[in-house]
Amino acid sequence: MKCIPNNVETLLMVGTSEKLADLYYATRFRAPDDFIFVWNQNEKILLVSGLEVDRARDEADVDRVLLYTDYENKIRSSVEKNPSQEDVIGALLQDLKVEKIHVPDSFPIGLGDSLRSNGWDLRVLHGPLFPERQIKTDSEIEHIRNSQKAAEAGMAAAINLLCESDIHRGTLVLDGKTLTSERIRRSIHIALMDFECIANHTIVSCGEQGCDPHQEGHGPILANKPIIIDIFPCHSSNGYFGDITRTVVKDSPSQKVLALYETVLEAQEIALKKINHGADGRDIHNTIQHFFSSKGYATEQKEGFIQGFFHGTGHGVGLEIHEAPRISQRKDILQSGQVVTVEPGLYYRGIGGVRIEDTVVVRSNGCENLTSFPKRLELT
Amino acid sequence: MKCIPNNVETLLMVGTSEKLADLYYATRFRAPDDFIFVWNQNEKILLVSGLEVDRARDEADVDRVLLYTDYENKIRSSVEKNPSQEDVIGALLQDLKVEKIHVPDSFPIGLGDSLRSNGWDLRVLHGPLFPERQIKTDSEIEHIRNSQKAAEAGMAAAINLLCESDIHRGTLVLDGKTLTSERIRRSIHIALMDFECIANHTIVSCGEQGCDPHQEGHGPILANKPIIIDIFPCHSSNGYFGDITRTVVKDSPSQKVLALYETVLEAQEIALKKINHGADGRDIHNTIQHFFSSKGYATEQKEGFIQGFFHGTGHGVGLEIHEAPRISQRKDILQSGQVVTVEPGLYYRGIGGVRIEDTVVVRSNGCENLTSFPKRLELT
Repeated sequence: MKCIPNNVETLLMVGTSEKLADLYYATRFRAPDDFIFVWNQNEKILLVSGLEVDRARDEADVDRVLLYTDYENKIRSSVEKNPSQEDVIGALLQDLKVEKIHVPDSFPIGLGDSLRSNGWDLRVLHGPLFPERQIKTDSEIEHIRNSQKAAEAGMAAAINLLCESDIHRGTLVLDGKTLTSERIRRSIHIALMDFECIANHTIVSCGEQGCDPHQEGHGPILANKPIIIDIFPCHSSNGYFGDITRTVVKDSPSQKVLALYETVLEAQEIALKKINHGADGRDIHNTIQHFFSSKGYATEQKEGFIQGFFHGTGHGVGLEIHEAPRISQRKDILQSGQVVTVEPGLYYRGIGGVRIEDTVVVRSNGCENLTSFPKRLELT
Repeated sequence: MKCIPNNVETLLMVGTSEKLADLYYATRFRAPDDFIFVWNQNEKILLVSGLEVDRARDEADVDRVLLYTDYENKIRSSVEKNPSQEDVIGALLQDLKVEKIHVPDSFPIGLGDSLRSNGWDLRVLHGPLFPERQIKTDSEIEHIRNSQKAAEAGMAAAINLLCESDIHRGTLVLDGKTLTSERIRRSIHIALMDFECIANHTIVSCGEQGCDPHQEGHGPILANKPIIIDIFPCHSSNGYFGDITRTVVKDSPSQKVLALYETVLEAQEIALKKINHGADGRDIHNTIQHFFSSKGYATEQKEGFIQGFFHGTGHGVGLEIHEAPRISQRKDILQSGQVVTVEPGLYYRGIGGVRIEDTVVVRSNGCENLTSFPKRLELT
């Protein structure tokens, strides 16, 4: 399916595939603990603990699965104390008659230095290890589509609670209890379960809280204030993410919030039209920045806070929630098959924040939006 | 609160604090994206993106929070293309008049090599960066206690479903629908929400599935077969884990399963009695291994599978679900204030798996069990 990176004789990776998307991508083996992966011209080899060996043999897309303790025992006689990880790796590489090893630039420096000082010719691969990871296959797009459906189901659960709630003295109340960020987040997460998805950092942030784009939100939800809901679920077994944001107001938004919303919505439409195979993410981002400025929405430090539009217009989505490519101030040419978010936003203290986000597939003639959830500011 | 590691002038860390427990431990700032952390004799400094800067200033236990783009802009004129991460780090270190940098052994080798080739004297700290992280403060123990309560609430939800179910032709049925691993897992995860906890990899595995200790389990739950339920929730904001395992049988276990259960339970009692400040984890683990052998339960490769007792007796729990110390075949002297699991298990194809796990605090005179959930094999 995948090829060993160009000009690499032997690739060595060590880590936790749940934390290292490239390691999962290369092995298709999700594990919560460290394992060792060697890929040479002939085969892909995993070295795992006894706890993982059977599952690895069942699930991993590799040629051989070896037991870590077998190697440990093999060399126990030749080293004084317990064999270290570098002893074990060294023994494996010797068995494989490897001479030159390549490692990704994220490889742990401690282990890398040890291997070098043991005489191994270890070279670092800079930049993306598997650039093809950006270009999603049809089945990867199906996984992301499924996670995006989960995200939409979560959004629907949140909007339902907001619609069903009443307003008492400016605060939302449902079934006799104050409606809080926490309660909405709980409903979202339950809705995700039907899709075997889990989300961390789900944002339900109201009013001033929404001015800080990574603030997750807490406490009572207020009427007439913008509420940012941002959900990015990950599928428990395949590991692919979805990503959606909507901004809503229960009852009536102020004129300022309404204007902010219409501007962000227009910006998103402009950006969506520009997503295309060959488009430069930087151009798209610059267009959105200029659009906001031209509408009188400045981005600047004010009263001690950054305000305006101070994040990227979008980012790749896949096995990581934020991955290449970026639609930001850096040059990045979009390619057909990439999956990216389009999520302009504006944030002003005293008004609140507005962000609208869809996840789309870059196509040769535009983009395919994986998101169909309606964009509607006012909830009655 | 914490001190810079011994003999370190300037510590540099780069990464995602949600994936690097040491980075969170040192900064108390949880973020889903990379940031840069510099700690010298005078101060702790974070370099973060605009998206995180306000939250970092609010939440992080550091002296200064700087904006990454400020440094980028500062040096943009002096470099040809977009400033790289190493350019930005270099500029910061120059401003701080740093000469010698220490990095943890997990530091990315690509960035480390670049800094070295730019002339920085970069040294790697081997072994645990903050050995004191193993010794939990009272407030850390309270966090773990809370996550352990969440785990127990999840266990209660699972046991309730099993108790309320009926048996139809050997399969469990509840409310007219087959009771599956997936459905039980869903109930567990909903129960965790009341404690603001999220769990990944929750195990509900029945019969043969339980022979593979990391198999999460899927499909119908069978009567008269051992069901392993292993829950290790993490608190969404403080990041501390809990960990519990129980094994149950709906209706009547076979004589072989009953004998397995009684042996594992006795092993756990033996191990719990040996947990103590100053005890060697290896001695405890060896005792359990010998106990199992003496009872006729061999650990060996059989019919192509590892069977018997082939994982550690326990592991530390804190900001990572598996952290130091270990109660395993490696020497590791337990210290008062460490939090560890005690989880012997036996797994045989054709019979199934049994594991019983509590999480305890090592004390000077034994251990304090944070787990009070009953241990009962048979559910009626």
